[in-house]
Amino acid sequence: MKNVAILGFGTVGSGVYEMLSLNAEKIEKAANTPVKVKYILDIRDFSDREDAHIFTKDFNVILEDDEVDIVAEVIGGIHPAYDFTKAALLKGKSVVTSNKELVATKGAELLKIAKENNVNYLFEASVGGGIPLIAPIHNYLAANEIEEVGGILNGTTNYILTEMFENGQSFDEALKCAQELGYAERKPEADVEGLDACRKISILMSLVTGKFCDSEKIYTEGITNIDEEDVAYAEMLDSVIKLVAYGKNTESGIYAAVRPAMIKKENPLASVRSVFNAAYVKGNAVGKVMFYGRGAGKMPTASAVISDILDIAKSGGYKGYFWEEEAKWVSPAEVRESYFVRVSSKDEGKLREAFSDKDIIKLSGETEEIALVTEPLTEKSFEDKFRGIGVIKKIRLLGEDE
Amino acid sequence: MKNVAILGFGTVGSGVYEMLSLNAEKIEKAANTPVKVKYILDIRDFSDREDAHIFTKDFNVILEDDEVDIVAEVIGGIHPAYDFTKAALLKGKSVVTSNKELVATKGAELLKIAKENNVNYLFEASVGGGIPLIAPIHNYLAANEIEEVGGILNGTTNYILTEMFENGQSFDEALKCAQELGYAERKPEADVEGLDACRKISILMSLVTGKFCDSEKIYTEGITNIDEEDVAYAEMLDSVIKLVAYGKNTESGIYAAVRPAMIKKENPLASVRSVFNAAYVKGNAVGKVMFYGRGAGKMPTASAVISDILDIAKSGGYKGYFWEEEAKWVSPAEVRESYFVRVSSKDEGKLREAFSDKDIIKLSGETEEIALVTEPLTEKSFEDKFRGIGVIKKIRLLGEDE
Repeated sequence: MKNVAILGFGTVGSGVYEMLSLNAEKIEKAANTPVKVKYILDIRDFSDREDAHIFTKDFNVILEDDEVDIVAEVIGGIHPAYDFTKAALLKGKSVVTSNKELVATKGAELLKIAKENNVNYLFEASVGGGIPLIAPIHNYLAANEIEEVGGILNGTTNYILTEMFENGQSFDEALKCAQELGYAERKPEADVEGLDACRKISILMSLVTGKFCDSEKIYTEGITNIDEEDVAYAEMLDSVIKLVAYGKNTESGIYAAVRPAMIKKENPLASVRSVFNAAYVKGNAVGKVMFYGRGAGKMPTASAVISDILDIAKSGGYKGYFWEEEAKWVSPAEVRESYFVRVSSKDEGKLREAFSDKDIIKLSGETEEIALVTEPLTEKSFEDKFRGIGVIKKIRLLGEDE
Repeated sequence: MKNVAILGFGTVGSGVYEMLSLNAEKIEKAANTPVKVKYILDIRDFSDREDAHIFTKDFNVILEDDEVDIVAEVIGGIHPAYDFTKAALLKGKSVVTSNKELVATKGAELLKIAKENNVNYLFEASVGGGIPLIAPIHNYLAANEIEEVGGILNGTTNYILTEMFENGQSFDEALKCAQELGYAERKPEADVEGLDACRKISILMSLVTGKFCDSEKIYTEGITNIDEEDVAYAEMLDSVIKLVAYGKNTESGIYAAVRPAMIKKENPLASVRSVFNAAYVKGNAVGKVMFYGRGAGKMPTASAVISDILDIAKSGGYKGYFWEEEAKWVSPAEVRESYFVRVSSKDEGKLREAFSDKDIIKLSGETEEIALVTEPLTEKSFEDKFRGIGVIKKIRLLGEDE
């Protein structure tokens, strides 16, 4: 018998509780032992529920109960989630979580405490919702040198971009639609400015490198500047625009960024539509592997939390998740990317001179700008090439096999 | 220290050996113990190699050596792979394999022997090459009721179909091309007639249901009949054709089939091009999850074999893979599918009568046929609807969200 305490009875917490009850038989079979919810911590009053006896407002009741093996922290945010997690790990309880903010900020410290206490801090639900992602990368690609990891990690922005491309909506219209459908918050900044995706790529890069990749050091650009001209250009180039988070693991160090990318339609990332997410990993032996599914939602996220609970229930041992001190970063200036670049028409002459071998693209109708697609350039070589040319906007470019 | 014996020094076997040597440090770290190749079994002579001492032609040397913990069977085919696997399991050695034919045929028996001897028979490499698939489905979706599993599981046919669509080749031309590139065998029947995909969906369905799903009972249709008219129709319908293997797990029983499907371009399966594979799973909580990557090749497949070796090296315990006696099948006649149907022009009147609400499609140019797309029909209702109508061909239809 394994006893679980759920911290927070919000959307995910209630999903975890429902699923553990509903699929109890299947879970017992998979775990080889019954898995029971002994406590639910929430500050609200649930005394009129039939199962009121398992609700508590006092975390210490859970902490001091030696029968609690696994704590599912689904409160979100840093406080009090951090304190509860730390206390539980120090008491020899494993913790599973969907809290990407906490993992991205305090992951290295909490994983160290878990290791010292021979318990686990698992976070499958923190990236990609219900998509099995963290555990497969940790377990099944362990023999590969991972060269790159990334993907479309935020469903809200992907929904907005899909609407802009498929239904001709403006950014503002699509955002409003997303808010009405509950896909975007009333304060949508964390999603549309790229912060949510930034935390997720921080977690994935830390996982892949085994070193803490601080989200503060990740170049992050959201989708608020994507306009209908970008959409029209993308369509001319048989491409779509997606918010792509990615990190590269090179011999000289690591690099990570979140930014919009113009992606050829043949690239599998281009077909990730609406609120779906996809994450890819490039291993030296396995090549590119991609994982796709619903990146959010009550039951998908609960499903991921339960996969971690099952993993611990099946075999209590330490699973080897550990991030050492901070990773070595390479300067963004060293990184080479191809770009789609919009330029003022008056600089057409200079542009043709600097890029004599490239086609110039023009939108139909009256327009005071032109555009082109560059070869891979470092920041420095980009500046050199475009010196004296009025750049309106640049967007990272992804070909069909990247 | 864990000692491994590799059975068969062919493409995959040599890949496993190279990777275990090359990434030894990383593997030791992930497994928490060194993983060493003690023997390689092959009937050929390797006595002039530097590492000749680890080669043997006698399986009994491996069987009788109690230091051998894990046997990697990468011989392929039924004999002698079956006898070696059975003997090793009975001796208390775990076996990992890439041998889909053996797993699909003798899996239930071998998993039972493994369970009785408290060892493991793992087969990550048998489906989807290097894509982490079997273990994530077993471990991470264990709490979900899986309603459907399937995908594009054969790279050879997917390469051929991609060439037919993107480069206008005929089936014969594309097959020849695939053979020249080493993507297709000189005797290509197992791939192009769907047998390879049939074995793989048999394994996935057995995994998902926990019951043996005999490949002999799976309706299997290859791609040899796909012609340039089908390609032209698909393009009119903004679709592509892929060989899709799938299985449904319903309350009344299971159903599985391998057959070409016409897939809307917005469906993520449509963007799986060339030799890539993709498998999807539909869970009651998690929704649709998809795994994508290289479905074959020396290093991807070796990578999957090593993930199983690592899994066993890390924690020796029994992992719970088990297939009971045979699954209960539903009659294919009960299954509802939508179809794309080509019909002789002379029956246009009857067709319009039977499907008054559907659009009739015609290819441009001179043609003696018409086509249409049906609603979901059982076999019986299909026959009723098309009674007296000259059906030229029917192809299963997949919409953008299926």
